[in-house]
Amino acid sequence: MKVAAHAAFEPHASLRPLEYDSAPLGPYEVDVAVTHCGICHTDVGMIDNDWGISRYPVVAGHEAVGIVVAVGAEVDHRRLSIGQRVGVGAISGACMNCEPCLAGKHNLCSDRDDTVTRGQGGAFASHVRVSNWHFAYAIPDAIACEHAGPLMCAGTTVFAPLLRHNVKPTDRVAVVGIGGLGHLAIQFMAKWGCEVTAISSTSKSEDLALALGAHHFIHAGDPDALARQADSFDFILSTASGDLPWDDYVHALKPQARLCIVGVPTKAISLEPFGLLTREKLIAGGIPASPVETRLMLDFAARHGIKPIVETFSIGQIDQAIDHVRQGKARFRAVLVA
Amino acid sequence: MKVAAHAAFEPHASLRPLEYDSAPLGPYEVDVAVTHCGICHTDVGMIDNDWGISRYPVVAGHEAVGIVVAVGAEVDHRRLSIGQRVGVGAISGACMNCEPCLAGKHNLCSDRDDTVTRGQGGAFASHVRVSNWHFAYAIPDAIACEHAGPLMCAGTTVFAPLLRHNVKPTDRVAVVGIGGLGHLAIQFMAKWGCEVTAISSTSKSEDLALALGAHHFIHAGDPDALARQADSFDFILSTASGDLPWDDYVHALKPQARLCIVGVPTKAISLEPFGLLTREKLIAGGIPASPVETRLMLDFAARHGIKPIVETFSIGQIDQAIDHVRQGKARFRAVLVA
Repeated sequence: MKVAAHAAFEPHASLRPLEYDSAPLGPYEVDVAVTHCGICHTDVGMIDNDWGISRYPVVAGHEAVGIVVAVGAEVDHRRLSIGQRVGVGAISGACMNCEPCLAGKHNLCSDRDDTVTRGQGGAFASHVRVSNWHFAYAIPDAIACEHAGPLMCAGTTVFAPLLRHNVKPTDRVAVVGIGGLGHLAIQFMAKWGCEVTAISSTSKSEDLALALGAHHFIHAGDPDALARQADSFDFILSTASGDLPWDDYVHALKPQARLCIVGVPTKAISLEPFGLLTREKLIAGGIPASPVETRLMLDFAARHGIKPIVETFSIGQIDQAIDHVRQGKARFRAVLVA
Repeated sequence: MKVAAHAAFEPHASLRPLEYDSAPLGPYEVDVAVTHCGICHTDVGMIDNDWGISRYPVVAGHEAVGIVVAVGAEVDHRRLSIGQRVGVGAISGACMNCEPCLAGKHNLCSDRDDTVTRGQGGAFASHVRVSNWHFAYAIPDAIACEHAGPLMCAGTTVFAPLLRHNVKPTDRVAVVGIGGLGHLAIQFMAKWGCEVTAISSTSKSEDLALALGAHHFIHAGDPDALARQADSFDFILSTASGDLPWDDYVHALKPQARLCIVGVPTKAISLEPFGLLTREKLIAGGIPASPVETRLMLDFAARHGIKPIVETFSIGQIDQAIDHVRQGKARFRAVLVA
């Protein structure tokens, strides 16, 4: 099959067309014709080689929605079939045989197929291949195509920690950062039943945070505001892409409570030992979800009307859209429409 | 009641006798005539004002064993009575009314009574007062007095994480540091049913570690040895008093597994973000146990014959014993005998 992709040939450059023939379809593989694709910070990071791991040409894109156009011989046709609308996220496959895979934690497989680090093969293209069909997710009818894309990466990244860390509807929780991830996290936590505090360095985000379901707002620039929250949160989710005053956030946790970091800090995370030890607090890292977690997220979002706030761009505007994300201007997720 | 104590009047000085009259006994209080007391690094740290919080004169000591000589009016005499042998650890009381206390997590009470930070009032004395009788623990008959003391602090500190972090007998676990805490942790984890790896910078500790129940030994000075353990431990307990190459230990954790720190680092704990995030690993702090956890520890130690390796000193040798601990020479716990 011919794939028409939008590729970066060097960091920070405009994308150029790249056509390639896909390999023969394997027995567990699925091809999806992309109709919509969200743009995540990770896409821009791969295009710009922010982590030194990019192999050019880079075809990024890993928040895709589209139509199944081909399925491998071993795909269960009762569960996935040609013509079906599906979402494809950051993880397109896993070995299915290692201990994490067998335990249902495919997102922790060390041989997992990360859509965005394939080099060629991301979803800024006419088609994206899913290397294991369990990672092509049926989208509930209640979710629009332009909303489904950002749920596939940003949505699962902020939803899965609620499951993994056993967050309870009685919990007092905080979301740090109100961007592509954070604005979804506020909605998920509010519908989860929690008392939600949104924390942002942008004070004008307060009205939006409350509209999304937050009960309280803290301006991150006010050092006293966080200090007043000592020992008060059962769970804090950091979605900020950057380096926080980590000790201040640990201080705001209840005893034995957790700070989960899903935004990517640029520097080492430094923690004052007594802050962690004396009240037995925890720090955890988080990444996008497993297949079961992803399905639960989609069902939960559909049932509660949770959706990202998006700005749509036609595929012809892809450079403009990527620049928009690169400059941190997306409110809150840019989505390409084919 | 007259209390004859051994007090530090300034950092690093020899102890001198200090007599004082105890306040009238409160309704929930208990007085214990001390027969044995372990010496913990924290005692030396308080004597030497290592953390800048010591108020002189300092009477340290918080791994006490002794005989109950007085009980307050509200103490349940069916559960605790005069003449009974009890242990007293790092925590001698809590408010009993806050959320952590009501949840059974009295060790996380912000008003807890830390035996060693009272100033006067530690167990390097003829008597120690327990401010709430639930913190005076009956010692099972199978445990000798000189062994019970170190279990009260070091023992609970390394045992409680097994409960809190849901360590399973099928887990592959590691203990970092083979000292007062670590040599007990190896025993607890081995009897817990785990596959235990001991990690020490002292290669001559290998035989001892294996004798205590460890299945494997890693020399911390060999950088390749730890690197070979990538993604292999379900749980790592750091008992080392000092700063570890934290990222190397995070690297050795399985996905979603935990590093629990109970030894006190001297500097900030620095963590490379991707090590924590991409396999969803966790870091946690730990302190001594709650009353229920402490009782479970004592029963478990009695049932399995777990005991510290101790060096006993008469109370007249207290300066010599403290110097022994101060210089890191204790193998593995120094215990004073009245």
